[in-house]
Amino acid sequence: MHAFHDIQFALQADTFHAPVKGQFAFHPDFLLLINIDGDIAATYTSDHPHYADVRQTLVAQDKLKVLEKGQYLMPGLVDLHCHAPQWPQAGKGLDLPLYDWLQNYTFPLENRYQDLAFAAPIYQDVTRTLLANGTTSAVYFASIDRAATELLAQQCMDLGQRAYVGKINMDNTEQCPPYYCEQNITAALDDTDAFIHNVLAIKGNENRLVQPVITPRFVPSCTPDMLNQLGKRVQQYDLHMQTHCSESDWARDYAKQHYGKTDVQIYADAGLLNHKSVLAHSIFLTEEDVSMIKAYRAGIGHCPLSNMFFANAAMQTRELLDSGVQIGLGSDIAGAPSPSIFRAAFDAVSHSRVREEGVDVRLSAGQRGTANARISFVEAFWMATAGGASVLDANTGILETGRHFDAIVIEANTTIGNLRIWPEFDTPRDILEKIICLAQKENVKRVWVQGKDVLR
Amino acid sequence: MHAFHDIQFALQADTFHAPVKGQFAFHPDFLLLINIDGDIAATYTSDHPHYADVRQTLVAQDKLKVLEKGQYLMPGLVDLHCHAPQWPQAGKGLDLPLYDWLQNYTFPLENRYQDLAFAAPIYQDVTRTLLANGTTSAVYFASIDRAATELLAQQCMDLGQRAYVGKINMDNTEQCPPYYCEQNITAALDDTDAFIHNVLAIKGNENRLVQPVITPRFVPSCTPDMLNQLGKRVQQYDLHMQTHCSESDWARDYAKQHYGKTDVQIYADAGLLNHKSVLAHSIFLTEEDVSMIKAYRAGIGHCPLSNMFFANAAMQTRELLDSGVQIGLGSDIAGAPSPSIFRAAFDAVSHSRVREEGVDVRLSAGQRGTANARISFVEAFWMATAGGASVLDANTGILETGRHFDAIVIEANTTIGNLRIWPEFDTPRDILEKIICLAQKENVKRVWVQGKDVLR
Repeated sequence: MHAFHDIQFALQADTFHAPVKGQFAFHPDFLLLINIDGDIAATYTSDHPHYADVRQTLVAQDKLKVLEKGQYLMPGLVDLHCHAPQWPQAGKGLDLPLYDWLQNYTFPLENRYQDLAFAAPIYQDVTRTLLANGTTSAVYFASIDRAATELLAQQCMDLGQRAYVGKINMDNTEQCPPYYCEQNITAALDDTDAFIHNVLAIKGNENRLVQPVITPRFVPSCTPDMLNQLGKRVQQYDLHMQTHCSESDWARDYAKQHYGKTDVQIYADAGLLNHKSVLAHSIFLTEEDVSMIKAYRAGIGHCPLSNMFFANAAMQTRELLDSGVQIGLGSDIAGAPSPSIFRAAFDAVSHSRVREEGVDVRLSAGQRGTANARISFVEAFWMATAGGASVLDANTGILETGRHFDAIVIEANTTIGNLRIWPEFDTPRDILEKIICLAQKENVKRVWVQGKDVLR
Repeated sequence: MHAFHDIQFALQADTFHAPVKGQFAFHPDFLLLINIDGDIAATYTSDHPHYADVRQTLVAQDKLKVLEKGQYLMPGLVDLHCHAPQWPQAGKGLDLPLYDWLQNYTFPLENRYQDLAFAAPIYQDVTRTLLANGTTSAVYFASIDRAATELLAQQCMDLGQRAYVGKINMDNTEQCPPYYCEQNITAALDDTDAFIHNVLAIKGNENRLVQPVITPRFVPSCTPDMLNQLGKRVQQYDLHMQTHCSESDWARDYAKQHYGKTDVQIYADAGLLNHKSVLAHSIFLTEEDVSMIKAYRAGIGHCPLSNMFFANAAMQTRELLDSGVQIGLGSDIAGAPSPSIFRAAFDAVSHSRVREEGVDVRLSAGQRGTANARISFVEAFWMATAGGASVLDANTGILETGRHFDAIVIEANTTIGNLRIWPEFDTPRDILEKIICLAQKENVKRVWVQGKDVLR
């Protein structure tokens, strides 16, 4: 047998993951061996011929932790779209139209983050809260302020969360309020360059647990020059990029009127798209847009709950999943109130169901919705884990040999929340669906990022 | 000053309630005096001329409990539609069409409740869980088994939950599975009569904390004779009645094809409607249906999350609220997975927004949805409290003199769930919206029913 010198610890756990879109795997008493780098060194299903021997060796070396029955191991969740500074706004103002919501709530709030004493406790709470909800990888839209955004990156590093952090760029004086707008493109780009450098230089960030993300807010808030200059940096440094894409009728029409193009074309032409770009929302895509996103191997951050409030329509999730475009999920704090990616997964299913059924009782059943638009809970789980990781080009999201060990443990019992599992009735598929429907922060008992226990 | 001999205790609390549909009231440091019967004997806003004197007397008599800042008192929540025996099914099978869902999951499960040893722990957990989520009044659809349903009623009594409990009647052999169908109408009605008698005779139930409810499952599952016989009992004993009403295309068409009438007309003609009837769902109502529901002063149990999965369309909530029909909310466990009426309130808002915006990107913005269909969070809160109480003709739902004291305390802090309140940013309206969006079981710190502390 191996001596397992390089093994940090091992787990024996009833394990869910979704290596293939549309399918899930359940491995009872799965053995996972985590090496000293925090990667998965090996896995053994309970029917593997070496299972008993490996297990015995691990026990002898005091390296095996056995999860209790009723606890389930699964990949950590991936949040592709979270506006960290909007955290105090989560759950209010949702009655407002998007424009009023931004002007009256969001921009004045985001502008306050230039005060680091204001920023620090809020950023600390939002990052901890996401982690406690099981989000091991988070893509953060911060604010236009560099220092506060670097603070956010540092806090993610300190906390041990895999994070993709962006200092927002927005310089179109016609669309941005005067108090919250970069008025000098050179200074803004210098700030962005310094931000990239400083995040990569964070102490302990040699393996890039925390990565800088180029972050043009969206087409209307940027000048064409800004988009092009940011695109150059994406290409030159091979950086992640995040932005909003065709989120609403207004955003789609703005692009058409000002550029004669779609958002996707504008981003592509500016050099902003690559194999790790996150296009949040992506509601009103044309067929050409979809082809272009696929050609660049860019990805979509689907934010279903926010879409119900602000997007004017439902994303074509069914068709996009079938097209092979990379898709993951986003909380879109605070366009939606919940920081839970389980909730996003649930809402992805329910919004797809509403799209299939339609809403208008005055129409006949056949006219009301879009046939076969539903997605399954298993597909939603895939988006929440492997799909999201794939968008980020991250080696996580699946619990298999060679991946970073980013994982969570879900526990169900009658003292916590509303998730109930009855072993007598519930198949593995049922258990997975119930977790997506009902797991909340208190059900997340353990969180590991890169093999490190980070739930404190 | 009064001696307050009849006062059991008093509270000083930052208090929300919604006495008027579409409005909310926030009373900081509201004083509520609860008498020995558990009713609200008096209230004082902090600007009342006697406030200081009353408060001083209460303190002197050691009768005043002062809630901490960051805790909010509000009326207990009302769940108008909960299938208690479906609790183990919450959060699974939602991918299925309604027919398969009923036949493969629900009916086999409900049928098992004839085994009281099976029923007892599940009923215990669901009633406790609803109470812990802040539901002080619950309307339960149980199963066709009388003994198990009496057990449920007894458990509600023991727990101190205000409950409206129904033994299901379903006798149409063409629609019900053979193993789960009342084959003898006389025996079924005798059972129903015995059930009514036995619930009213529960020890300690002199004030009818727990009430029997006439419960025809829905039109397809009952013979016309059954509906008529049940209607006679509603009229004769002035009983509550609950049923499903025009929940889906199929249900609506069934009524048309078999009776040439709508569900509402069928129920009215059978004598089933009165001033405390609960018509769950009520999606496909005609104008005549709405007039008839109003004429009988019957009410609607709106179950928005379940509707997203099973109703084929969105309820016309905006128009129904404007029409003055009585409406409250239902969890519809397990047609929806969450037992929280805060969640139902949130989903009522979001489904109304989806209805307003529409879902189909292929249509123009003007064609996509129904203009002005949205409802507000404040209206949803009214439905969750005063509206629901009004449907039941219960003297609860508003924290005013003369009402029964059914109330909850919501607490927000960073150690619990995801609800965050920043006094610096959040107006009372913001706080109320945040509670609706994010409060979960763990935020419910105190629950009183009829003045009794029932959260254990």
